Amino acid sequence: MENKKLIEVRGKPVGDGKRPLICTPLVGRKRDDVLAETAKIVQKKPDLLEWRVDFFDAIGDAAEVIGTAKAIRAAAGDIPVLFTRRSIKEGGERIALSEEEVVRLYETVCESRCVDLVDFEMSNDLADLQRVRAASKAAGIGMVMSFHNFSYTPGLETLNQRFLEAERLGADVAKVAVMPRDLHDVLTLLTATLQSSEKLRIPLVSMSMGGYGSLTRMFGWVFGSTVSFAVGASSSAPGQVPIEDLNTVLEILRKSLGGKQV
Amino acid sequence: MENKKLIEVRGKPVGDGKRPLICTPLVGRKRDDVLAETAKIVQKKPDLLEWRVDFFDAIGDAAEVIGTAKAIRAAAGDIPVLFTRRSIKEGGERIALSEEEVVRLYETVCESRCVDLVDFEMSNDLADLQRVRAASKAAGIGMVMSFHNFSYTPGLETLNQRFLEAERLGADVAKVAVMPRDLHDVLTLLTATLQSSEKLRIPLVSMSMGGYGSLTRMFGWVFGSTVSFAVGASSSAPGQVPIEDLNTVLEILRKSLGGKQV
Repeated sequence: MENKKLIEVRGKPVGDGKRPLICTPLVGRKRDDVLAETAKIVQKKPDLLEWRVDFFDAIGDAAEVIGTAKAIRAAAGDIPVLFTRRSIKEGGERIALSEEEVVRLYETVCESRCVDLVDFEMSNDLADLQRVRAASKAAGIGMVMSFHNFSYTPGLETLNQRFLEAERLGADVAKVAVMPRDLHDVLTLLTATLQSSEKLRIPLVSMSMGGYGSLTRMFGWVFGSTVSFAVGASSSAPGQVPIEDLNTVLEILRKSLGGKQV
Repeated sequence: MENKKLIEVRGKPVGDGKRPLICTPLVGRKRDDVLAETAKIVQKKPDLLEWRVDFFDAIGDAAEVIGTAKAIRAAAGDIPVLFTRRSIKEGGERIALSEEEVVRLYETVCESRCVDLVDFEMSNDLADLQRVRAASKAAGIGMVMSFHNFSYTPGLETLNQRFLEAERLGADVAKVAVMPRDLHDVLTLLTATLQSSEKLRIPLVSMSMGGYGSLTRMFGWVFGSTVSFAVGASSSAPGQVPIEDLNTVLEILRKSLGGKQV
């Protein structure tokens, strides 16, 4: 069992594709909180850290954002840092910045090269998405283009279109996170993940959220999702599993799939 | 997360539906081997034991079969015993008995009430199936009607028909076990399990076999499969997971699904 399409950071693949990358969110409101989280989480050896800057009180202070990002990176050692402002309409926190200010922040962060990857929603204005794409590309920073639906799970074709749209828009990674209303929705998300992972040239990340969706956080990588978001210190979305539990399940899966006869 | 349709033994449900029943196979060739397996496995506290009598050298000696079944049961304490002759064409061992002799053995075993459940394939002659159904019903023994395909995974409709056929034929439990050729097949089996578990009045058991299929042995119960076959001492089919690993995954799933928000 192996995912052939790997997420790259500065031209080098992260991980070996034989298990998902485990990404733990940082959701502190102040620099000290974020750094305390980082220190705690780094000991648990995740593969990626996602700094959810929409939780950060000083998001409007670019110098403070960059200073904090640099401090996170210094504390993270070799672990790449993903920079994410999750918009309110896709499950993020309320912030004081306008969209223009958010895009400027992404541009400044990219120029400073203080992070390794950025995430930006495809539902944002296309011109804004293109500016973030240009800024990240110029800085050699990978870009995740994402789609979230915290209310329900769209149909199979819509999910596949979201993955494809990310690739067409020039993403380095396509991400889809949706809320299931029942177990049928969980299977729909897994089916879309499998179908799109066979079609796309770029790696993809997917998850079903909430309780039922926690299944996809544990075994979605088998169906082609290259990253699983897990709880290091605090959860950033419903259904995230503690990193220790995820590691345990992944080790058992590795043994089982290693002996696969198909 | 709860399966509402429970397997019953002598009128009482086995388990509480909040996790799958773990069934471990007994595959010894001689009475002493089978009893040694039983002693070893009982310490691991499975919910069911399946005696695969097609592995048993003395399958042609009804008195020896009954004596061994009684000895298994005495050693198993409260753990119910499922009696199964798996036919060659559905993945079982070669035996010296004719089909008529096999049916007679099932009848004798039922009459002696030395087991709690029996499994018989739906692909067998209908008259034979009805005789085993009559004998098991007369003795108050539950009957699993099963379908296996060790070569491939039939389409969704065919799988749903197999579950439905078991119910129509008067089964107490419907079982479908198939081999996936790829991960799409694994999703097909899970989809059929979910759809049929919502339609049928009786509990069902399903699994995808082999390496990829091991996923369904761990997560299939969430989609409606009431039993997972795990390795206590020896495996009886490809992809079975050690009982210790299965218990670990189930405990993590219980925590994750317990907090479900869907």
